[in-house]
Parts: sequence; C-alpha cells; structure tokens
Amino acid sequence: MIHSDIFQDNPKLSIFLPIYYTLWADSVMTTTESKEVEALIHRQYWLSAEEKEWLFEQFNPSNPPKPKLLKNLRKEIKSIPIEQESLTAIGVALAQKYQSDVSYPQDVMADFEFTEQALGLLGKEASYSFKSGHETITNVQHAEQNFNVSALTALLDGSHAELIHRVKTVISDHAFAFREFESLQDQREQTLLWCQELAKQGFGAWAFPKFADGKDDMEGYFAIMETLSYHDLSMVIKFGVQFGLWGMSIFFLGTEKHHRKYLKDVGSLKLPGCFAMTETGHGSNVRGLETTATYNHEKKTFTIHTPNPDARKEYIGNAALHGQKATVFAKLIIDGEDFGVNAFIVPLRDAEGNLVSGVRIEDCGRKMGLNGVDNGVIYFDQVDIPQEDMLDRFSSVNEAGEFESPISSDNRRFFTMLGTLVGGRIGIPRSALAATKTGLTIAIRHGEKRKQFGPEGGEEAPILNYRMHQRRLMPPLATSYALHFGLRYLTDRFLKRSEEDAQEIEALAAGLKAYTTWFTTATLQECREACGGKGYLSENRIDALKNDTDVYTTFEGDNVVLMQLVAKNRLTEFRQEFSDMNMFTIFNYVTHQAKTSITEKNPLIVRNTDKEHLLDMDFHLSAFRYRERAILTSAARRIKRHIDEGMDSFDAFNVVQHHLLNVGQAYIERIILEEFQAAVKETADEGIKAALTQLCQLFALYTIEKNRGWYLEQGYMEGVKTKAIRKEVNQLCWEVRKNALALTDAFAIPESCIAAPIARRNRGSEGKVFKATDEHR
Amino acid sequence: MIHSDIFQDNPKLSIFLPIYYTLWADSVMTTTESKEVEALIHRQYWLSAEEKEWLFEQFNPSNPPKPKLLKNLRKEIKSIPIEQESLTAIGVALAQKYQSDVSYPQDVMADFEFTEQALGLLGKEASYSFKSGHETITNVQHAEQNFNVSALTALLDGSHAELIHRVKTVISDHAFAFREFESLQDQREQTLLWCQELAKQGFGAWAFPKFADGKDDMEGYFAIMETLSYHDLSMVIKFGVQFGLWGMSIFFLGTEKHHRKYLKDVGSLKLPGCFAMTETGHGSNVRGLETTATYNHEKKTFTIHTPNPDARKEYIGNAALHGQKATVFAKLIIDGEDFGVNAFIVPLRDAEGNLVSGVRIEDCGRKMGLNGVDNGVIYFDQVDIPQEDMLDRFSSVNEAGEFESPISSDNRRFFTMLGTLVGGRIGIPRSALAATKTGLTIAIRHGEKRKQFGPEGGEEAPILNYRMHQRRLMPPLATSYALHFGLRYLTDRFLKRSEEDAQEIEALAAGLKAYTTWFTTATLQECREACGGKGYLSENRIDALKNDTDVYTTFEGDNVVLMQLVAKNRLTEFRQEFSDMNMFTIFNYVTHQAKTSITEKNPLIVRNTDKEHLLDMDFHLSAFRYRERAILTSAARRIKRHIDEGMDSFDAFNVVQHHLLNVGQAYIERIILEEFQAAVKETADEGIKAALTQLCQLFALYTIEKNRGWYLEQGYMEGVKTKAIRKEVNQLCWEVRKNALALTDAFAIPESCIAAPIARRNRGSEGKVFKATDEHR
Repeated sequence: MIHSDIFQDNPKLSIFLPIYYTLWADSVMTTTESKEVEALIHRQYWLSAEEKEWLFEQFNPSNPPKPKLLKNLRKEIKSIPIEQESLTAIGVALAQKYQSDVSYPQDVMADFEFTEQALGLLGKEASYSFKSGHETITNVQHAEQNFNVSALTALLDGSHAELIHRVKTVISDHAFAFREFESLQDQREQTLLWCQELAKQGFGAWAFPKFADGKDDMEGYFAIMETLSYHDLSMVIKFGVQFGLWGMSIFFLGTEKHHRKYLKDVGSLKLPGCFAMTETGHGSNVRGLETTATYNHEKKTFTIHTPNPDARKEYIGNAALHGQKATVFAKLIIDGEDFGVNAFIVPLRDAEGNLVSGVRIEDCGRKMGLNGVDNGVIYFDQVDIPQEDMLDRFSSVNEAGEFESPISSDNRRFFTMLGTLVGGRIGIPRSALAATKTGLTIAIRHGEKRKQFGPEGGEEAPILNYRMHQRRLMPPLATSYALHFGLRYLTDRFLKRSEEDAQEIEALAAGLKAYTTWFTTATLQECREACGGKGYLSENRIDALKNDTDVYTTFEGDNVVLMQLVAKNRLTEFRQEFSDMNMFTIFNYVTHQAKTSITEKNPLIVRNTDKEHLLDMDFHLSAFRYRERAILTSAARRIKRHIDEGMDSFDAFNVVQHHLLNVGQAYIERIILEEFQAAVKETADEGIKAALTQLCQLFALYTIEKNRGWYLEQGYMEGVKTKAIRKEVNQLCWEVRKNALALTDAFAIPESCIAAPIARRNRGSEGKVFKATDEHR
Repeated sequence: MIHSDIFQDNPKLSIFLPIYYTLWADSVMTTTESKEVEALIHRQYWLSAEEKEWLFEQFNPSNPPKPKLLKNLRKEIKSIPIEQESLTAIGVALAQKYQSDVSYPQDVMADFEFTEQALGLLGKEASYSFKSGHETITNVQHAEQNFNVSALTALLDGSHAELIHRVKTVISDHAFAFREFESLQDQREQTLLWCQELAKQGFGAWAFPKFADGKDDMEGYFAIMETLSYHDLSMVIKFGVQFGLWGMSIFFLGTEKHHRKYLKDVGSLKLPGCFAMTETGHGSNVRGLETTATYNHEKKTFTIHTPNPDARKEYIGNAALHGQKATVFAKLIIDGEDFGVNAFIVPLRDAEGNLVSGVRIEDCGRKMGLNGVDNGVIYFDQVDIPQEDMLDRFSSVNEAGEFESPISSDNRRFFTMLGTLVGGRIGIPRSALAATKTGLTIAIRHGEKRKQFGPEGGEEAPILNYRMHQRRLMPPLATSYALHFGLRYLTDRFLKRSEEDAQEIEALAAGLKAYTTWFTTATLQECREACGGKGYLSENRIDALKNDTDVYTTFEGDNVVLMQLVAKNRLTEFRQEFSDMNMFTIFNYVTHQAKTSITEKNPLIVRNTDKEHLLDMDFHLSAFRYRERAILTSAARRIKRHIDEGMDSFDAFNVVQHHLLNVGQAYIERIILEEFQAAVKETADEGIKAALTQLCQLFALYTIEKNRGWYLEQGYMEGVKTKAIRKEVNQLCWEVRKNALALTDAFAIPESCIAAPIARRNRGSEGKVFKATDEHR
C-alpha cells in the first residue's frame, strides 16, 4: 500500500505520486493505462528491482487504494504551492519537499511528461484539480452594458411612448397583480374585471371615433394591445375579442348608423359581444360557411339559422358567458337565391345575461391556455333580426328587397370584407412578440444568475456562458429585435393603406403573423427548456406564456394556410411585374433567368470567408433577396410544368405546397431584414447603433445558416463559406450575450409583469422600468 | 349592361360570355386584363363597330355588373352540359344553344384560346367552376390497409404481449376513466388512488424480488411503465417516483437488509417515498450536492442536514403530500472529513402524514403539467437516522467508524451509484414515445376525417391529403416506429449489461433519452397545430400530452447536458479503439483520415439520384455511419487544436459544444437506423415488411434531409442528390399516408385512453383494440 510515510522514507519515488493520484481519483484505471505506467516504471533505470516491484503493485488495477488514503494523498499534494503545469513537475516539487536536494535527470523528466500525455492526462488540466481559483474564459464572461438602455427603450417605443407608459402604469397597479385562480369560473371573471378596468381607462375605445368616446387612433390601439401583452394573455385576447373583433367588425363592416348605435357601448364594455365567423365545419375555408340569413320581405327582417351541426359557430370568444350580441357571418338568402357571406348583428343574451330565444350556446371548456376567455359554440334556431342590423358597408338589401353591392362577385365581396379586418393579423403578432420578449427576459436573467459546472478547481459558470445556451437564446433575442422593426413596418403600411396595395398588405400581415407566431412558439419552448425545472413551475410564467400563445399559430388564420396565401400573392405580384408580357413570355423569361442565374454567382464570393464580408449587411441583403427571388421563380416554374404535363392545378399546388411555404418565409425574412437594416442605419446613437448592428448581423447570419442547405444546393455558397458563417454565428452569440441583459432591460417590461421569481433582479429596480420612457417624454 | 336577353338576340356574341363571367366573378378585373380583352375585341373582324363598342363597355373595369346579373349568367352557363375544357369552347356551346347553326372560323377560335391563356385563365381550371364533381388526385386519396394490423401489434409488443394486454385492461377500467379535476388537491388524490390500484394489481413490485411480492422482472417493469403512458402521465410519473426512483434506489444502492425491510411496503405503496437527489443549487451538476450526513461515533447515527438554502432538495416527487421516507443523497462527513455523496434512507412523515421533527417541506405548487404529482422542496434540520439506513452497496461505515468502499475515488463511486439508476433514462423515453404515439393517433385520425378546401366544383379534401400536413405527421410516424426498435435495443442492452459495457449503455441511455424526449416535444407540438383549434381544447388530450411530457427533456438529466455526456463518452470510446496507439499517434491518424476521406467520396455516388439508390438501405446506413464518424473525428481534432493553441480544456469543450451535440445526435441516429433496419430484415410477413420498409426509408431519408446542410458542406452529396432526396421524402410521405391510420391502429392504444372526441372512430371499435394481442396469445 502506498502511504505517504513510505514516500517520506523514499522521497525520490514521489515523482509517481501525482500520476498515481490522478489515475485512481477520477476515472476507472484501465488495463491500457496500467500498461502504460508499467512500461514507464520498467524504463526507470534509476530504480531498484524492489522499488519497481512495489510500484507495479500500486498501479495494479485490481488493487485500489482505500478512499481515506486517496484523500490523504490529495492533501499531501495540495500542501505544496501548485504553480506547475504538469503532473511530473508537481511530483518533483513534492519529492523536494521531503528532501530538498532530490533531482531527476532531464531524460527521466521527459519520459514522465511523455507518459502523462500518452495517458491523456493533459498536465495543465490535471494539475488544476489541485489548485483553487482556476479561471477560464468561460466562467469569467459576464454581463456588460455598452449603450444607454433608456435611449434604446425610447427608440423601440417610438411615437407612442407616452401611451405605452400609461398602459404599463395601469397594468402595474395592484388590481392587476397576478394570482392563482381557484377555478375556470374564477379566472374568467377576473379576466372580465381586468377588461372592464381597461375599458374604464379608455383603452377599449381608443381606435373608435370621437363620438364613441374614442381617440380615433388605430396605431395607439395596436400599441395598447402590444403593451397589455406583457400582462396576462387571456386578458389581451378577451380585450381583442371585445374591442378588436367585435368592435372593429362594426366599425369596418357597418356604416355610421351602426357606429352611432353600438360603438360607445362596445368601447365601454357595457355591451360585450362576439365575432362569430368560424364554424365547426369551416375553419380555414370560411368561404364555405353555411349559417343562413334569410330575408323576409314582409317583416323586413333576416332570419339567422344554423342548418346543420357543422354550421354551428365554434370557438367564439365571449360567447360562453358574457357576450350579449355577435357579428355573425352568414349566407344571405333572398327568395331562395344565395348572395354569399355577409355580416349581421345578432342578439345572444339580454342585459341580464339570459339567452335570447332561439340561441343555444355550449361552453368549449378547458383549453391548453387562454382559460380566462370564455369560448363557446353557438347554434341559431330561426332567430329574427331587424333589417338595419345587417352590416351594410359592402352590401345591402334595398327598399324593394333586392340585393345591392358595388362588388359584383360574392367571393370578391367576402374577401374584401375580410380584408378590412386584417388588423387582427397585426395585433396578434405584436402580442406574440411581447410575450416572447417576456419569455426571453426571464430566461436570460435566469441564465445570468444560474451557475452550473465549471473548470476543475474553479468557480461554476453562469449557464448563459455556455455556447449551447447562447445558441438557444441569442438568435431569438436578435430575431425579436428584427421582428420589432418588421411589425412596425407592417403597422405603418396598414395605417397608410390604399385600395391599390390592400392585397400586398394582406399578404404581408398574413406572412408576418405566421412567421412571428411560429417564432414565438419555438422561442418560448427554448425558454422553458433553458430554465430547466424552474421553467416548468407555473410561478415562473413560461407555462402561461407558452400555453396562452400556442393557439396564436392557429387563430386569425392557420399558419400553414396563411403562408400559402402569401405565396399565392407573391406569384400574382410576380406575374404583375411583367404586366406587358403575356403568360407565355413570362414563363419563357423565368426559364431563361433560371438558366443564367448560375453564371451570376461569382466564384470568389461563393467561397469568400473574410470576416468583413460575412458581417457585411449588403451581403446579407443580397443573399436574402436572391433566395426570395429564386424560390419564387422556381415555384412558378414547377407549377407551370405540372400543369403543362396535364396535372390539375389543385394537385399542382398541393405537390409544391412545401415549396410554397418557403416562398412565404423567404419573402417575410427579406422584409424583416430590410426593415431592421434601415432602422440600424437611421440610428444616430453610437452605442445603440453598435448593439443593433450586432443583433442585425446575428439575425441575418443565423437565418442564412438555418437555410444553408438551400444555399449550398443552389451553389450560392460553398461549404467553406457556410462553415465560416456558423463560426461567425457562434462568435456573434458570444458577443451579444454580453449585452443580453441590457437588451432585455431595454424592452422595459414592468417588473410586476415579469413576476417570475427566477427573474428577480438583485438590485432594487422595481421603479426603474419606466425610467426610459419617463426620460423620453 | 350585358343581359342574357341581348345574347339571345345576338347569339354569336356569347363566345365572350364565359370570359366575361370568369373575369368578373373571382378576381379584381385589372387594367391589364381589360386591355387584353380590348385587344381581342379589336381583332374580331366579324363584329360590327357597334357590337365592339358595346363589348368594350362591358369589360370596362369601372362598370361592374350587378351581383344578381352575375348569378344569372352563371346559371345560364351551367344550363348547358359542360364537357369542354376551355372557356372558348363553352362560349361556342352557349352560342349554339341560342342558335344551333352559329359557328366561328378556326382563327377566331385560336385567337380566343390564346387570350384565355394570356389572361392566365387556365381554361380547364376555369371551366371546373361550372362543373360539379371535379375530382383530383389530392381530394380522392384515402386510407388503405396493406398489412395485418394485429400481426404488427404483436410484433411491436414482443414477448411481454400478455402483460401489456393486462395493463391495458386495467387502465381501460371505469375506475381509470379520465375526468376533469376540481383542483390541484383533487388531481393529486386521484393520481394517488390510481397508483394504489396499480400497486394492488402487482405492477408496482414487478421488478422486485419474489420475497417482496415481485416478479423479479425488470423488462416487465419497463413494459408496464410504457403501457401506462397511454393513460394519464401524472399517474405514470408518480408510479415511476414510487416504484422506480424510490424503490429502485433501495434495490440498487441498498443491500439485502434494506430489500427485506422496505421493498414489500414500497411495492404495495404502503410506504410512499421519495428520491431526493436534486438540490436548488445543484441540478445538472449533482457532484456538487451540499446536503450533509455527518457520522456520530457514539450514537452510531448519521445527522442529515441542509447547510444553506441552495442545498435544499427541490422538485422532489411525492414530497409535498404523500412521501413518508426518502432516499437522500448527501455528503458523508466523518470526523470532519468529506467522503463524497452517498445515499441514506431518511424519514419525512409518520404513517399518519405528520412531518418528522427537523423536516420542513414546501409545495412546488402548480406546474406546466404533471399536476397530479406532488413535488416539494425539502429542508433537513439535523435529522438523525440509524446507521443501518445508509444504503451500503457501494460504501459503508465499519464498526470502528471508518469509511469503507471498494471504490477509492469519491467521484467514481458516486458515478457508479448513478450508473445503477440508469433505468430511469430508459423508462422516460419509453413513456415519452407512448405519449407521442397517442398524439399521432389523434392527429392522424383527425387529419383523415377533417376536410377543408378542395378543387373548384369538387369535394373538400381530407387535410391529411395535403403535402404539408403529411410532412408534419408522416416523418414523426416513421420516427416513432424507428424509436420503438431503438428503445427495445436499449432495454435489451441494459438487461444484459456487464461492468465492461456499463459506460457505453449509460451513454446510449442518455442519448436515447435526450433524442426521444426532444422528438416527443416537437411532435406533440406538430400534432397540436395539425389539429387546429380542436387541438387546443383540453378534451382532445394533446394539451395534457404536450404539457405533461414537456419536462421530460429536463428531468432524468437535462438533454443538452446528456448529449454532451454522450459526446464525451464517444470521444473516450474513440480513443479506446486505438488503445495501442498513444495520443500523439491517434491525433496524427485522425488528421490523416480527415485528409483522405475526401477521396473516398465517389463522384458517381455524390450525384446519384436513382430512385433505387436513394431507397437503398445500405446507402442510408453508410451515410449515417459516415456522418457519425466524421463528426466525431472533427470534434476530437478541434478540441486537440484548441488545447494545442493554449486554450483551457474547459473553454475548448465549450467552444465546440454545439458540435458535441451533433456528435451525440449522429451516434444515436446511427443506432436507431441499425436497429430499425435489423427489425425490418427479421420480419417475415410480407405486408408488414413492406410497410416497415417504407417507414424505415422515410426515417432514413428524412434524417438525411434534415442534415443535408452538413452532407453538402462535406461534399458527401451534391445539390442534385439532396434535392432528389427531398422529392423522395415527399413521395414517401404520400405513400405512408395511405397506411397511416392502420399504422396507428397497430399501436393498439386503448380507445378509453385516446379519449379525444376528434379521434373517435366511426365504426364501433371500442372492443377492437385488444384484438391484436388477444390473437397473439
């Protein structure tokens, strides 16, 4: 048995001691290792046969030391000052401790050091286990703040900073404190109370005309909805159902008589209502709605009716409990003739909450999330409504009982009506992004505080310093900033829309809705996992954020369907670009272009891995644009080819469906990048500009990396370049991580809304969060 | 105004009628379109100036027809039998209806048909809108069943079919019917009741020795846990905590005295207990646990103590309400000396449920899911336990109060102890896969029944016929089958493990746990979205499946950490393959190999797009193996290079962390494919073999497609080949979709467990689900 006494009796053997300790202490001593050491011992010409025999015995794998002995050895080794960077050197120091004049020939030292390496004991590493305070790049990285956070908040908030501040103040009030709900009933009532409070603050009517106590400020309405989304999302959706869907359907599909009759009570929530479009059998394909509104010439009324169970209205928010009226979409029938889907205001309950005769409502019950919203199923059994309750902006029944409309086609009229309601597809992604920002704030704060693992003998590292953790959270942080500017652009375009660009904006909204909500779902999933078990506890909020937003990918249009709508719009726009060519010419052009595009790829660029080039914003935008155009072109070509080969166009579109999703995605990504780059360019503040530039580069390169299979297939990049991009993404993640905390601070989410115990700041920052906007005013 | 009367007065103009209708009916009439038609009118030498003028007026974009007129035109067109495949031909037929002898010169007909195309009105398509019963490939695809479902079930169930059948019978009993819970308390009590019922059936003790009323059948225990996972997952996890974690810790870390003292009561659930390892500050890095167990020489007891809040035991299942004892992991201290983490049985509550003195427990409260499991936080304040309650298989304190262990190193001993508990990393992925199978069964049945959109004039298509829907659900279906065989292999290896392959099996379990649970999370997300709003309603089960399994990626080891563990094990194995080389030689070999591998890529193969080649299982396996080896080699090389350049090894591993995840993933994917291919080869039944072959091909090609960026970067494939693979994946999705319903039927999940209203079978199949296993017995 090795015993420190023996070494003290025979100090020169101590050179074996650190290797001995290390081999026994941390891994299973394998036969290979034991043989390696055996050979080393054999080679030691300065040892006696007895000493060698004794050493062989010590390194015999079936002769482990007692635990206690191993501990003593460790203490022995640690008792000398560890400066050395190899186990051999430590061994020598140890020997000299026992007998100061011990020394070993140069070749012996070299032999030991060679064996150390052969054993895979990287000397420096192994020696760290004896040191304390071992520091590495990984465990010392920490948060920095290289820009003025308040100024960035002001930049993000834009012109509605004051309103945003007001909304934050309201939802930070004690009345809005999060609490656990006893039951579904309890949660729904609380959600209603919160909405009533918001209505009282004037937020509900914000977009409505002044005569309805509104501010006539649609942009403000979106800012309100977005800011509310830092708080409970059931509240946001109930708010959106009442003031957005129910209110806006009256506002956009009705005429002044409806506005004057209803909007004031809608805005004050005196008149809770519903938006009853979706039917059980008709979710995405709403053109096929079957509810009927039959005109009665004598009584000048419409009879609303559910002809079969598939035609019942489903998932209708506000229906199960609170809704008193609903905008109902139904096929208008006059004298047996079908005039397509039109909109009608139909009573559901009286002011006391009793159901109107002929109306049957079922509760949708528990959902994955948004349980504060009372969704219901509605059946109508011959419910009569007066003629004036037809929302008649786009169609009406005249005095003679004839249908009138400036739009000839039923389908076109219906889609025109739907087009006016595109605001929902702006409010939802903005709400989704706010929820994502909250999730990222929680996960990043946790990643900063939570330490786990570390170098041998050193402090544990914050988990945000691990590359995978950065890869999980930094690209989403960059994408959140990118989407912030993308959604601002969408809002601007919507507010300034005209008849000419209506369809383009509808496609933009559809695409950004789909892109953002998928991003939200994926990011909150990463946040949950990045917070480990803590992320699974409801108190840390990611549960609610994830589950409440999960349906965002479905409502206001299923994302897959929406992305196809975007693709079809792009194909149409593509065609219109060539308006003076006929279809044959266009397809010839397309084929030609595809053939020549290969020559446009400069061989120097496809292999260029210079850092300067890779970080160049023009390179990013060119790559995005190339992808967008090439995918669109090839989609058009494929559809054409399938149809030429005799395929039904319905089948042809189905065959390329996967490709069409990429058309939509590439288009949206290009828009987002353009807007983010423009925002960066406009920024004057140097610190903020630098931070945003990094985020913009990360968004761009991460997106290219995500699509690298495509770029490689196209020959637009070669493997050396995509590999260099991956490395650059890793590096940008590492850089952005430093600012990460400050970048989430700039979202300026009220601490009372973040609420998660794992995200609590150490410094008392309760009052701090509004500072940014305060200063900005 | 165009009026059908006018056409009847001047029938030859009717050739314009279908174009007129089509342009006004479905899209906005653009200036371009109007100009195109204007030119057409101009060219008609057979028209008078007045007739032309009148026609110009009709096609004026600012002069839309009345809705009613458009409807009449449609009726007019539909009144003739529509056989024609162009609008021109329909127009001619219409003219001939009014005046049978009307005819048009050949050049006029050609001119009209050219204009139709120039307008983008693909005649055949446009004409469909006048037909009824338009069928396409897309809307007629339907479910087939090309193999014997019961025989496939028998193949999946394997040797434990009878036990699986018994478990299914139990959980289909009325006592196990799903119900909505009033409160957290209600759910937890129900979960306990279910577990008690399972214990009564003997399932809890199944793996225990006969003297503890067990069957000594570990394989059976896994089959039970997997089958139970078709039912409520809180029940499964509480079952796993009690019988797996608490029971198995006694079984594997204790000795016979503990087995005889405790196992019977554990198996019967008379003694509910906990597995208390994780601490607040020590989740993944459990080596750093801080709870202490201090030995008292005089009393021969251990004092269990929580020295600081970070050392409290956290997320401990069964702790908040029911646990009476716990296996507690704590650092053993004897005479001030730390002997590393050991395991002790510590009392928490008496049989009446009163907390033992010195024990404080807090409730973890609501979680994202698994709310039937009462997780708690435990603090120990100097709790004494008798010496015999140290679990002493791997270490003990002897009569003299000295520490004894056959394993010298504290760390090695601890990891050896953990290694015996690897069964948890088998039970969890098997449970996850069962939940995934349920989710896929629900989503595929829904996709088969739910119809939305369709060709003009045709029936709506089942959404499962859409390519994107197939892409969402078919690769996961294939992967589920693949994982079934992968997890069976893992179980077999575990049951036959020896000391030599223990580490390999630990890595295999860690990797398959991470791979499967990530797959589950992603797949259930797809299932939720694929079921649209219906997927969001809790009654359709995906809510619970997703939220309950969400933490599977975290517990039993965080997936990111586990995958790194796998990678490190692979690096070690890699090194051991070259056991007679020293490290220098190995790295030289690696560098050499990397340089030559490029020449191994046959230029014919990197571009081969033959279907036969792409579907060839040997090609698949070669590609998987190449990837595994190349990634492993390059990871080793990179780490070596960083360290050579002076980087700390902790930093070096962090820099390549993203790469290490791929090492783990590539290894696991190769294992899964090997096992799936072996299973296919062993299958005798032709129908089943064909079905499994398609699934295996889909799994392989989908996985290659997912990694195509990597294959392209490596030059292992060229773009033409990855594109051909994508096409083949689409085609396989289309083929597998036909069998999809039958393939989920083969999972033979009890209908009472599927439970989702959207997944209800039309045929009365309540009794059917056990048929497969019945026949097999």
